[in-house]
Amino acid sequence: MILHEGPFVSLCRDEVIRPDGSPGMYDHVVVDDGVRVVALDQQRCLALVEDDFHLQRRRLLHLPGGGTEGQDPRAAALRELEEETGAVAGELRLLGVIDPLPATTAARTHLFLATGLTSGTVNRDATEAGMSVQWRPIPEVIRAVREGVITEAGSVAALLLAEHVLQAMPPGG
Amino acid sequence: MILHEGPFVSLCRDEVIRPDGSPGMYDHVVVDDGVRVVALDQQRCLALVEDDFHLQRRRLLHLPGGGTEGQDPRAAALRELEEETGAVAGELRLLGVIDPLPATTAARTHLFLATGLTSGTVNRDATEAGMSVQWRPIPEVIRAVREGVITEAGSVAALLLAEHVLQAMPPGG
Repeated sequence: MILHEGPFVSLCRDEVIRPDGSPGMYDHVVVDDGVRVVALDQQRCLALVEDDFHLQRRRLLHLPGGGTEGQDPRAAALRELEEETGAVAGELRLLGVIDPLPATTAARTHLFLATGLTSGTVNRDATEAGMSVQWRPIPEVIRAVREGVITEAGSVAALLLAEHVLQAMPPGG
Repeated sequence: MILHEGPFVSLCRDEVIRPDGSPGMYDHVVVDDGVRVVALDQQRCLALVEDDFHLQRRRLLHLPGGGTEGQDPRAAALRELEEETGAVAGELRLLGVIDPLPATTAARTHLFLATGLTSGTVNRDATEAGMSVQWRPIPEVIRAVREGVITEAGSVAALLLAEHVLQAMPPGG
């Protein structure tokens, strides 16, 4: 049963049988799956974007990414990366998939590593008018995670998962 | 404005000014902040709990933790750890705080490392009737994150953040 249907967020109620056998209700949130992309350039720098977040009432530094908007996660990752940073990925590798809030929503966040970057076209939507992009050396970005500067769950997970993969990659790879 | 108020999840609508200056509405979810605890015992094993998740329609392996239920995050972490595993922490260290879905909810997940464990009392609620606990060596748990067996965002972030901290800790510390 849909309790409220919104343009981006809906609230639903399921009838469930609890572990103890009694009937119950389970309210949950329906939102788009998400994608986050660790994008590595030829100088071994990673793309970070900074944007205003209404709910946190501040700017957050995070990896390029966003909602899948009904696309396959790989297609959404390629689209979001180019829209936000202007980079086109030659290769896209899946780092993992996380459940951001599994008791609240079934939405998942798909994490990718993008390499072989070439130049495309930045194309931000109206809600991203204040977005800025920076390319930073890998150790500086990992430090920003460990020091609590980067806090968005998909970015934290993707960067810490990518750290091992990046260490094993030859320069230019 | 509250669109729907539920026992665990509420949906709210804020009036906002968009980055381009136009008025708009922003729907968001209000849920409890969460806590996740990396609990290290004297054998250098970590606690994992496994439980049924309705929305994923399967059991998920994750760190002890849950909602703060209005408590201070440290108190909630100590409570959840004891309730779910029976372990009482002698020391609790903050590993970090993440934003699981910052465009959807302001709720945060607070990540802790618990050491100096002693025996307390397991006290699971009715929704946790099917929960099981296991203590596993650190490398096995980290591998479960990297191989995608552990996917809950707070558990993934806490374990990868704890990995460096644990490597630097003397045995028994």
